Amino acid sequence: MSKKYVYLFNEGQAGMKALLGGKGANLAEMSNIGLPVPPGMTITTECCIEYYHNGKKFPTGLFDQVYTNLSIVEEKAGKKFGDPSNPLLVSVRSGAMFSMPGMMDTILNLGLNEKTVKGVADNTANPRFAYDAYRRFIQMFGDVVLEIPKYEFESLLEDLKHRRKVTFDQELTAEDLRELIDTYKAFVQKKMGRPFPEDPREQLEMAIEAVFRSWNNNRAITYRNLNKISHDLGTAVNVQSMVFGNMGNDSGTGVAFTRNPSTGENVLYGEYLTNAQGEDVVAGIRTPQPIAKLQAEMPEVFDQFIKTAKLLERHYKNMQDIEFTIERDKLYLLQTRNGKRTAQAGVKVAYDMVTEGLVEKKDAILMVEPAQLDTLLHRQIDNSIKIEYIAKGLPASPGAASGKVVFDADDAERAAKQGEKVLLVRTETTPDDIHGMVAAQGILTSRGGMTSHAAVVARGMGKPCVCGCETLKVDYTNKEITIGSLVIREGDLVSIDGSTGNVIHGAVPLIDPVLSDEFIAFLGWADELKKLEVRANADTPEDALKSREFGAKGIGLCRTEHMFMGQDRLPHVQAMILADNEEERRQALERLLPMQTGDFYGILKAMEGFPVCIRLLDPPLHEFLPNQTDLMVEIAELRITKQNPALLTEKKALLKKVNTLHEFNPMLGHRGCRLGITYPEVYEMQITAIFDAVSKLTKEGFTVLPEVEIPLTIDKREMHFFKERIDTIAKETMKRENVQFHYSAGTMIEMPRAALLADEMAEEAEFFSFGTNDLTQTTLGFSRDDAEGKFLNDYLSKKILKENPFIVLDQEGVGKLMRLAVEGGRKTRPDLLIGICGEHGGEPSSVAFCHQIGLNFVSCSPYRVPIARLAAAQAAVSSGEVLGTK
Amino acid sequence: MSKKYVYLFNEGQAGMKALLGGKGANLAEMSNIGLPVPPGMTITTECCIEYYHNGKKFPTGLFDQVYTNLSIVEEKAGKKFGDPSNPLLVSVRSGAMFSMPGMMDTILNLGLNEKTVKGVADNTANPRFAYDAYRRFIQMFGDVVLEIPKYEFESLLEDLKHRRKVTFDQELTAEDLRELIDTYKAFVQKKMGRPFPEDPREQLEMAIEAVFRSWNNNRAITYRNLNKISHDLGTAVNVQSMVFGNMGNDSGTGVAFTRNPSTGENVLYGEYLTNAQGEDVVAGIRTPQPIAKLQAEMPEVFDQFIKTAKLLERHYKNMQDIEFTIERDKLYLLQTRNGKRTAQAGVKVAYDMVTEGLVEKKDAILMVEPAQLDTLLHRQIDNSIKIEYIAKGLPASPGAASGKVVFDADDAERAAKQGEKVLLVRTETTPDDIHGMVAAQGILTSRGGMTSHAAVVARGMGKPCVCGCETLKVDYTNKEITIGSLVIREGDLVSIDGSTGNVIHGAVPLIDPVLSDEFIAFLGWADELKKLEVRANADTPEDALKSREFGAKGIGLCRTEHMFMGQDRLPHVQAMILADNEEERRQALERLLPMQTGDFYGILKAMEGFPVCIRLLDPPLHEFLPNQTDLMVEIAELRITKQNPALLTEKKALLKKVNTLHEFNPMLGHRGCRLGITYPEVYEMQITAIFDAVSKLTKEGFTVLPEVEIPLTIDKREMHFFKERIDTIAKETMKRENVQFHYSAGTMIEMPRAALLADEMAEEAEFFSFGTNDLTQTTLGFSRDDAEGKFLNDYLSKKILKENPFIVLDQEGVGKLMRLAVEGGRKTRPDLLIGICGEHGGEPSSVAFCHQIGLNFVSCSPYRVPIARLAAAQAAVSSGEVLGTK
Repeated sequence: MSKKYVYLFNEGQAGMKALLGGKGANLAEMSNIGLPVPPGMTITTECCIEYYHNGKKFPTGLFDQVYTNLSIVEEKAGKKFGDPSNPLLVSVRSGAMFSMPGMMDTILNLGLNEKTVKGVADNTANPRFAYDAYRRFIQMFGDVVLEIPKYEFESLLEDLKHRRKVTFDQELTAEDLRELIDTYKAFVQKKMGRPFPEDPREQLEMAIEAVFRSWNNNRAITYRNLNKISHDLGTAVNVQSMVFGNMGNDSGTGVAFTRNPSTGENVLYGEYLTNAQGEDVVAGIRTPQPIAKLQAEMPEVFDQFIKTAKLLERHYKNMQDIEFTIERDKLYLLQTRNGKRTAQAGVKVAYDMVTEGLVEKKDAILMVEPAQLDTLLHRQIDNSIKIEYIAKGLPASPGAASGKVVFDADDAERAAKQGEKVLLVRTETTPDDIHGMVAAQGILTSRGGMTSHAAVVARGMGKPCVCGCETLKVDYTNKEITIGSLVIREGDLVSIDGSTGNVIHGAVPLIDPVLSDEFIAFLGWADELKKLEVRANADTPEDALKSREFGAKGIGLCRTEHMFMGQDRLPHVQAMILADNEEERRQALERLLPMQTGDFYGILKAMEGFPVCIRLLDPPLHEFLPNQTDLMVEIAELRITKQNPALLTEKKALLKKVNTLHEFNPMLGHRGCRLGITYPEVYEMQITAIFDAVSKLTKEGFTVLPEVEIPLTIDKREMHFFKERIDTIAKETMKRENVQFHYSAGTMIEMPRAALLADEMAEEAEFFSFGTNDLTQTTLGFSRDDAEGKFLNDYLSKKILKENPFIVLDQEGVGKLMRLAVEGGRKTRPDLLIGICGEHGGEPSSVAFCHQIGLNFVSCSPYRVPIARLAAAQAAVSSGEVLGTK
Repeated sequence: MSKKYVYLFNEGQAGMKALLGGKGANLAEMSNIGLPVPPGMTITTECCIEYYHNGKKFPTGLFDQVYTNLSIVEEKAGKKFGDPSNPLLVSVRSGAMFSMPGMMDTILNLGLNEKTVKGVADNTANPRFAYDAYRRFIQMFGDVVLEIPKYEFESLLEDLKHRRKVTFDQELTAEDLRELIDTYKAFVQKKMGRPFPEDPREQLEMAIEAVFRSWNNNRAITYRNLNKISHDLGTAVNVQSMVFGNMGNDSGTGVAFTRNPSTGENVLYGEYLTNAQGEDVVAGIRTPQPIAKLQAEMPEVFDQFIKTAKLLERHYKNMQDIEFTIERDKLYLLQTRNGKRTAQAGVKVAYDMVTEGLVEKKDAILMVEPAQLDTLLHRQIDNSIKIEYIAKGLPASPGAASGKVVFDADDAERAAKQGEKVLLVRTETTPDDIHGMVAAQGILTSRGGMTSHAAVVARGMGKPCVCGCETLKVDYTNKEITIGSLVIREGDLVSIDGSTGNVIHGAVPLIDPVLSDEFIAFLGWADELKKLEVRANADTPEDALKSREFGAKGIGLCRTEHMFMGQDRLPHVQAMILADNEEERRQALERLLPMQTGDFYGILKAMEGFPVCIRLLDPPLHEFLPNQTDLMVEIAELRITKQNPALLTEKKALLKKVNTLHEFNPMLGHRGCRLGITYPEVYEMQITAIFDAVSKLTKEGFTVLPEVEIPLTIDKREMHFFKERIDTIAKETMKRENVQFHYSAGTMIEMPRAALLADEMAEEAEFFSFGTNDLTQTTLGFSRDDAEGKFLNDYLSKKILKENPFIVLDQEGVGKLMRLAVEGGRKTRPDLLIGICGEHGGEPSSVAFCHQIGLNFVSCSPYRVPIARLAAAQAAVSSGEVLGTK
């Protein structure tokens, strides 16, 4: 006997989505719990896979099974397929494991032909209904199965209406439609060289094959690529007896959510149309009614529907999105699925369902997509208003902002002090602009990618930013922006949406984020369930406090370079860099020491009671100096104009130093702990500043937990070199200040060598933190700045990489190194604390991976902390490590 | 009973170097085979290790053992230590496992004091000899044990000579020396606050401790670091009864090699001095005699020495370096060790010893240091002439060259065509200079490191090159070089030594390399013994032929980018890059196709019968365009001077393209197969050219074995993308040309991700070739261009890295990835061909590693092929995989 390719609805169940597709499994489930589902059957995805495997041939025995089951469906429906007197009509729909709007359209009314259409006309005593159903069937079948473009049928219909001098389809009579059917058929004959199939069985077989074919149409492939669905799953086919919502005013069709998908409120939400088929709702010719009105029109049906909705929600333990049809006062369910919802609704539904006792906390945790939370944490453009944008850049830092355009950091600061809301617009930003970025509502640049200075700093600040908006021409001299013919001047209002990259002319209404009680409680449950600790990347006391507010349990990465970029520090930093000898360098460092001590004092105090991981200076020194090319151009100009010889001399000297610091591949250059190896005094100053701050706070009664982190190590001997200095300075400080404090010393793991030699690294390092940004760059050999603008798109569009590895952790490659490093590190030091502090630390699938490989913490920007908390909880729940909780 | 810390010479043997040190083990060995070695004992290295382990305390029982054994030595010598009438004097010498000239000096004549000196005077009837020995002892002991600077004793001696109005030490009388002894002793008393030790036992114990201490003096530590000797080995101490070469004209001392260490000729080679101690030879006051003269002076002793030398050679199976002393016509041996020798001598000695039946081939193979061979393969400066250099740059490509200075590639070509020998001098070279580099004898640049364009291209060509010679000021306008006050003009003669980096004013005599018959035979033995195949990196038929001559069995890396840089190609390459669309790009490629076909035809034909691995285009495209900064400066100038608006427009357009191609980290940028992913037509042209050439050669009857290599892969899907194209084009070509040929397709493994996912890569790739240059850059995160000039020195001097990882393969880190890749690749494809084609492929310790991890081949520059052959044979022999061969 051949394999079972066909399941009656009552043979399946919700758990069989892989075999029956989502739609088929749910139709089966509803049938089995006794809901009124028109009888039908599902042809399995396996059958589709075999069809492709056999070179697009149906497996033997398939149609025997189809017709055997069809006779059972006929029995249940009390009609017979192809029977002229009492014909069964069916719908044929695709239904894959994952919902795929890109796939085949539905074919309704299949089974109609010249004979059966008469039977329908007689049985319904409604010839117009019957002929309308028939011409719709020819149209759908022609389009979907025969692949004759839909518009060609439409134009024949328009011709007829033109000849009949009518405007709407409804004005056509039964005779008109009868004529149209003939026109359609003649047209099909002409197009295909064969008549439109009369045999219902032939229609059915062709329709089933069309569904299988549709699995690999372009739309479907594109959709799967976009949504990361495997191309090997295949689709199921649902063949279901037709019910009609267009049989009069006792009939109708509609769609409803069991709760409000926008707010989450526990109220049935939806709409319906009387005397209509589903496609009429979509066509938008008549305005549907709110579902509540059904109570007045058909109170019994409404009652039944309310009960059914509640039943489905309880059954599926999730908010449902239900399609239904009423045929002559009888309710039929055609589909149910988990309903899509906004972030706000997601959290509320999950919260309510727990309090209602419908689901357990661990189930509720899985109901919300972590990435969605982002929209709840930033000011947003009010979506209820339609907005046109004038340009589009990269969505560099989420949230929306409106303000008066300024072109200069000083102007921004001045205006902000006077209470003005400004938007800082630059071709690109530099460390000199930081104070302007702090003062502005948002930042807009015409150059630079997702890791440009503007983008990185803005994300760190949680400030909206759109960057690399190349259609913008920024003219500093005239203080104006040109976009095509549009000119925007200083002081004009502009808005940006950092979540989409949109730039809007004028102000837009913004909505402030409100952390609802449900949201806070929901994330509290996440904390109960998760194994991973969530920390934040923060460089300032303000960010540290913000991250505590969002539930961070420590700082996973405090970058000290941003502290070096403050306007009051930069001259000393530059003096340090330009120093000709260690003595001069130490003098400049001397001036920086109290400032750094102040920095660390502030952030350690803000994070009292939680660990703060402070990374010593990381970027190459030339980042603190002017750009080499700019300088060379400036010198060339000064040389030719001969107007300022003194300046020329000065610039030449500066260029000389910049030249010595110039690097071919700065990412792989003199940075990270390599600076500390070459200039130990720089790191010594920073270590001293940390312990000075720790001493002070300890004496003031604060509990502080500093972690000193060495970046970019590749060998245990580097770590040893610094560990000695850290221990010595700590000991000296404790002695000098007569105080005791705790600290630990560890390293970033961001170069493949450090990961490979993790067992040795752990001999010296007391903790690891994966810097997956750099680890991704080196493991793949992709410079992020170069790849994202250039070849990465080709890699994604040609499917060589599935994801942008800088956004979603490359679990195969980089992840393998991480596994090796965790194993190695823990072999040497079983209690080794291991975390991650790259951008991946806030990306849900990457967080799940970090959970799997046994990290202790993830660290991300403050605004992603809630996302990471939820993702961490989901990872714990999904891995089955969490038992039932209520 | 305590451990055995002391071994009499007759208790040890040559195999005990770890315990007894090299000197002690060899003294023992010589004693045991019956050679006249003055009796003595060795205190073990273990004792030294325990001494340090116990906080610089001697292990208990040590001196009981010393004195027990000393009494046996006394018996053999027929003298007694400290006996005033017949005193035994001893030497105390350090002797570690590896010879360490950085360690303690020898102490001679220990055991002398006021009483024993008289005994010596009486017994020898030579008071002057006795007092001279005593004052030398005080001086040595004072310096080495008491750490009183040597010059302070020297100045007391000078004082005395001044007072006595004599010039030479020999002119001082016994009485003078007696007085000097008192002066020395008073001086020691003053310096140390205690008298000079009279008790011979105290002298001995202090001397032994001084030897132990000397293991950790700065010189020794530096020496061990330089020579990669572990700091944990400790030193042994040799206490040996004294013999005196300065007892009259029937006494003497000397040093001899059993063969000529310069040529390898099998003739005793050395020199001696009569009536002298070893230090007199070193001091150079009297000129030593050639050893042959000893035959006339002391025929019996000479005879005995000749026999002894032969015996030692046969015994040690290697050329020996022997120290001897003759005391009153009696020969004593004081040391023997394997003698250092030149490369030429090394090969000849090894060859001769096999033909003489002294050693087996596998032993002979181990007698020559592979790196030494380099000097035999390039023209060299005749070292018999003393030469002064005027500047020193980086030794970028070995060999020496002399020629007239030219500053321009065209000038170089023109002059070369007229038969002139020229040296091309540039600030740095670019692809535009290639024809000039070909024409020149050598290349000298003032900028750029070991991987600069000049260096890489020159090494590939086997052409001498000195680069980054920063004291050179190159002035193109006036066509002159300035070095300080020295001005060198076009046409002046200059020489360079690419093996040392020296730049010489004027011509120097050069010696051509001659591959001796011994050399060829010797390398033939290496081929018999090695497991690894040795291929060459070669891009031209000339290089291919050169590499065959040096014994390469294939091309492991044929870089196609150099072909793109020829003057006739560059315009088309630039047109391809500047193309605005695929169509234009294809047109430019169309013009390159026949040229590439010609390239491949030439090299495949030259390597007939051997595999040729052709790497598709690798470097980023901007390398073929002018430099961005230069262009910006040029534009700034054109803009201000307003002299050539047309040129300004043109340059601006070019800059625009250069800007779009500009990269922040080109090493990690749009290069390698990423170009082929973005512009498949470029790789398709190259693949077509390869198969066109293969077809042509196959039809002409040549056996060609092309391997198509994809660079910089990180994922099997890249490999799949290209594999499809390679197979398609091969099939089409075979059909079109009606010919059958073999080919294979594989990939470089040069990014960590490719190594980590090697099991998957091997699903598509038929061979792997490790590109360890880039693999090192990415695994360590070191940009070679940036690291070598900047921080790498700090890493080496601070001992964080033991070696420059770009020269010696980082076996710990990069090597671990390689192991993983070999395992992974062979898991999928057990017969996977795996090689290495980075510069490491010609570095002996790296070659040994490649042997260990089971690679199939190493590939290196043609001039390093012999080195790799020898290194590969040594690896096979050392691993014990080779049985005896004769």
